[in-house]
Amino acid sequence: MKKIDVLVSEVGPRDGLQSLKSVMPTEVKKAWIQAQFEAGTQEIEVGSFVSPKILPQLADTPEIVAFAKSLDGLHVGALVPNLKGLRNAVEAGVDKISIPFSVSETHSLHNLRRSHQQMFDEIRWCIEYLETLPKHIRPDFEVGLSTAFGCALEGKVPAKKVIGIAEKVVELGVDEVCLSDTAGSGNPNQLKGLAEGIWRNCGREKLTGVHLHNTRGQGLANALMAVQIGISTIDSSLGGIGGCPFSPGASGNIVTEDLVFMLESMGLNTGIDIEALLLVRDIIKHALPHEELFGFTSESGLPLGFRSAPRC
Amino acid sequence: MKKIDVLVSEVGPRDGLQSLKSVMPTEVKKAWIQAQFEAGTQEIEVGSFVSPKILPQLADTPEIVAFAKSLDGLHVGALVPNLKGLRNAVEAGVDKISIPFSVSETHSLHNLRRSHQQMFDEIRWCIEYLETLPKHIRPDFEVGLSTAFGCALEGKVPAKKVIGIAEKVVELGVDEVCLSDTAGSGNPNQLKGLAEGIWRNCGREKLTGVHLHNTRGQGLANALMAVQIGISTIDSSLGGIGGCPFSPGASGNIVTEDLVFMLESMGLNTGIDIEALLLVRDIIKHALPHEELFGFTSESGLPLGFRSAPRC
Repeated sequence: MKKIDVLVSEVGPRDGLQSLKSVMPTEVKKAWIQAQFEAGTQEIEVGSFVSPKILPQLADTPEIVAFAKSLDGLHVGALVPNLKGLRNAVEAGVDKISIPFSVSETHSLHNLRRSHQQMFDEIRWCIEYLETLPKHIRPDFEVGLSTAFGCALEGKVPAKKVIGIAEKVVELGVDEVCLSDTAGSGNPNQLKGLAEGIWRNCGREKLTGVHLHNTRGQGLANALMAVQIGISTIDSSLGGIGGCPFSPGASGNIVTEDLVFMLESMGLNTGIDIEALLLVRDIIKHALPHEELFGFTSESGLPLGFRSAPRC
Repeated sequence: MKKIDVLVSEVGPRDGLQSLKSVMPTEVKKAWIQAQFEAGTQEIEVGSFVSPKILPQLADTPEIVAFAKSLDGLHVGALVPNLKGLRNAVEAGVDKISIPFSVSETHSLHNLRRSHQQMFDEIRWCIEYLETLPKHIRPDFEVGLSTAFGCALEGKVPAKKVIGIAEKVVELGVDEVCLSDTAGSGNPNQLKGLAEGIWRNCGREKLTGVHLHNTRGQGLANALMAVQIGISTIDSSLGGIGGCPFSPGASGNIVTEDLVFMLESMGLNTGIDIEALLLVRDIIKHALPHEELFGFTSESGLPLGFRSAPRC
């Protein structure tokens, strides 16, 4: 990857599209991914290796991964729910694989139909499988700590529980954990506390990314705290599409355009050309005219005389 | 005022209503102000002493001030454009009077039809008048540094210019300046730089508040930086109504409900009961059914198990 200050990891083609009723045609997905890559996005989560019966919107994930891998230098991510999905993702050539682990066991049972013990087993099997692979084809394997900031079903989620699960999966051998604000109830101080707890107990390199939602409008404030404390990867979704379909009341990833505007305004280089990024919205708008897109910068335009952070 | 960590100063009845085409009936304004006071809001900017020809929406300001003054302990604010307005505001018994000074002279000429020199003169006359008053009836007199973060007409506004104007009006004798992101183009690092510059040159007590807009979705991120560096008053508008009608492309004050949610979630006491605050929206919705209200917390509801910061 090119030298940047913050990696804005686009999750729209996965987290965004899985929440919509409409199915985006494969060719449009490719056009979106390509346009966003050309605007400077260096990492895109392009799909999910789940049963097409559960998420028909992402049934073309293998084809999308193959296309995304043809874009030179793009770090291609995908989500998997289990070992079977992981094997398929590895076969497709995915660079970074995430498995969601709901810290709230109630949410885990609803979302993945697995208890915590079943999830730990699944992750152990995944690691065992990954260890059989030659190092040069082994993808990064990350556990997304869903509901780390609170759960729409269980309510408060104690920080101790989040940190304990992070420790356990790191012991099992995952490369990284990611803090996910599934229910969009997190606040900046909580984010700092969770990150510092995980860093203290697992090592700094085991947590470099956060996945935030804008359910209560707190997305960019949380993202600001994240970059202030040294988090280097922030997930977001073009047009803010998405959320979690299994978490009642949860909706809205943070908006890529507004996040990039914040970071670049602050002098932090994202590698992304925001003017080109804003144009990518048109691809989604045109293909899914009935879906609501979010975001402010796209409506107001860039400020007069706006200049991005200097490129490296 | 009761002991709180951050003063959320409601500007909806002034900055909000002045931007709407609809005129809110006087009785509804009173109901809004009273409900928000009862929800714990300690400061409200209730109107503007400008010609009713320019802003018919605020023509009832003297009556509204009289009503607001009857709410025991409420700090009542109003905006004035000039000495004439100031005299009227003092006569009405306003506690805190703000005069806007556009750092961008182009915006100043558009907004107040005055050059910088004319504004300095006006402020001098205001101070001279205030000094003739007995101390116990003298209101706080603040200069709002409009377009401090950039101007929709001029573009970039150099920090040096903002700090220079702050110095000059402080020398003239104003109690405080306030940083206003009129065009909604500010970023957290810029806010920090401006505040620190003013503190260095004018003294810390001369800047305690900020007035932010959410034009590009950056409002709460900027508010977070503000509280992190020790700003203790943040303006916001219920339902995010308002903005500046003379600044093209500028719209959207930050949303009181989402701001209070952020602060209380972080453990910062605002003195405001957020559940009661969320109900105040209904007053505006009911009275102005065709006006758009903004905000996320009101849509999603409070998180399950949410508790506010402990009350003092």
